[in-house]
Amino acid sequence: MHPLLRKEGFILDVDGVIGRGRKPIPPAVDAVKKLIEMGKIVVFVSNNSTRSRRIYLQRFKEYGLDVDESQMILATYVTAEYIKEKHGKSKIFTTGEDGLKEELVLAGHKVVDYDEAEVLVVGSNRGINFEIMTKALRMCLDKAKYYYATNPDKIFPSEDGPIPGTGMIVGSLYWMTGRLPDRVCGKPERVIMDLTLKKVGLSAEDVVVVGDQIDIDVKAGRVIGAKTLLVLSGVTTEQNLEEMVRKAGIKPDYILRDLSGLFNA
Amino acid sequence: MHPLLRKEGFILDVDGVIGRGRKPIPPAVDAVKKLIEMGKIVVFVSNNSTRSRRIYLQRFKEYGLDVDESQMILATYVTAEYIKEKHGKSKIFTTGEDGLKEELVLAGHKVVDYDEAEVLVVGSNRGINFEIMTKALRMCLDKAKYYYATNPDKIFPSEDGPIPGTGMIVGSLYWMTGRLPDRVCGKPERVIMDLTLKKVGLSAEDVVVVGDQIDIDVKAGRVIGAKTLLVLSGVTTEQNLEEMVRKAGIKPDYILRDLSGLFNA
Repeated sequence: MHPLLRKEGFILDVDGVIGRGRKPIPPAVDAVKKLIEMGKIVVFVSNNSTRSRRIYLQRFKEYGLDVDESQMILATYVTAEYIKEKHGKSKIFTTGEDGLKEELVLAGHKVVDYDEAEVLVVGSNRGINFEIMTKALRMCLDKAKYYYATNPDKIFPSEDGPIPGTGMIVGSLYWMTGRLPDRVCGKPERVIMDLTLKKVGLSAEDVVVVGDQIDIDVKAGRVIGAKTLLVLSGVTTEQNLEEMVRKAGIKPDYILRDLSGLFNA
Repeated sequence: MHPLLRKEGFILDVDGVIGRGRKPIPPAVDAVKKLIEMGKIVVFVSNNSTRSRRIYLQRFKEYGLDVDESQMILATYVTAEYIKEKHGKSKIFTTGEDGLKEELVLAGHKVVDYDEAEVLVVGSNRGINFEIMTKALRMCLDKAKYYYATNPDKIFPSEDGPIPGTGMIVGSLYWMTGRLPDRVCGKPERVIMDLTLKKVGLSAEDVVVVGDQIDIDVKAGRVIGAKTLLVLSGVTTEQNLEEMVRKAGIKPDYILRDLSGLFNA
């Protein structure tokens, strides 16, 4: 039996771990089903900043996985919860997409135009335009009392090549105004990992953090002091593994070709 | 007589000096006419990265000024000329608007999609979108042998408030890829100022550089060792003058409320 199967909780990344875009990774999906059958606590933690949990659950159904909202911890949701905890229900202008807006509203915030807002929330947006950037710029220059970003990803590895991540907007605003987010909520930052542990009711030694990116997922595990498992089914591959480890400067505790490796001892 | 009227050449900024957007500053326009009547060499040098010289001449006609293309030195034009001088006629992908594309084509370059291009040219674009940013990102990551930016402006002071300048894109690409332009062409960089002196056939001691921004126009004059005149009809005002001088860390040689001050001794 793989030693990680002694852990009680599995904190799993989504993209590159159990699917790639709309396509599932069937052996990994099967492994998740086995973990659930074994009675393990399984949660999915993703830096995705454009989708709500509702949208994600739909994708999981397409993967053939029946999980519920409480098992789904997205950067969009965490950002909304964190702002509520720190400042109460707030008036927020966001650069983000409908998925992020949906989570902000579900948490009780008001999503408003920049001239009424007190909080700026930056999330990625495939519909980004000059007007949104102008409003975010003006908020950074003076209007925003607080400024949060959903996640730190600079580049996202999409199916047809690299595309800009949330860092596209964060970096642009920093260059123009010198201002960085007060807090970034997604992996590898503490905000999302702390909320995840709280949600599952486990401590760091009882969980393993699984993902395909060393500088994001493995680092997120390290931040809370949990064991980490790197799978080579996404951004990190057998070919680039050595370079990725060198670049990130940290090593995962375990490495598997994909999640099904937990069950092929 | 104002001592600067002894100079032979006047290198004038446009926005905030002889007009504001579509509106002329009448006393400044009259002053330009007087300079021309006196036989002075007058050229207009602007960091505008979205308009071609043809578009600019149209605006000048609306201001009531009849100048010709040879008196018009724009960052768009300078960028096109500089690339031709350095690399010959090139295949270029640009983030910029039609005005920039027009100048690139006039210089003999081919404006192509990113997968055919060797050179990336970043200029501001009020129609910026995720697709353009994705293409620029991919060029920065590997495809672009050379990378130029029209101008370094981070924020542009528009009539209804601050809007992003070309720096919006430059900063974003830098944050995502660590790559900066091989060269920035507009003020206060040498590229545009050297070309301007060459065009007018004068040396730096025979000209005065006039503008409304200390860190751009006055600095551009300093770079070539010319005398500088700051006018308080644009970004710098009587109210913020002290702060602007402190921030920029340089002082203009002369300061006037607007350009007509040259003739009110």
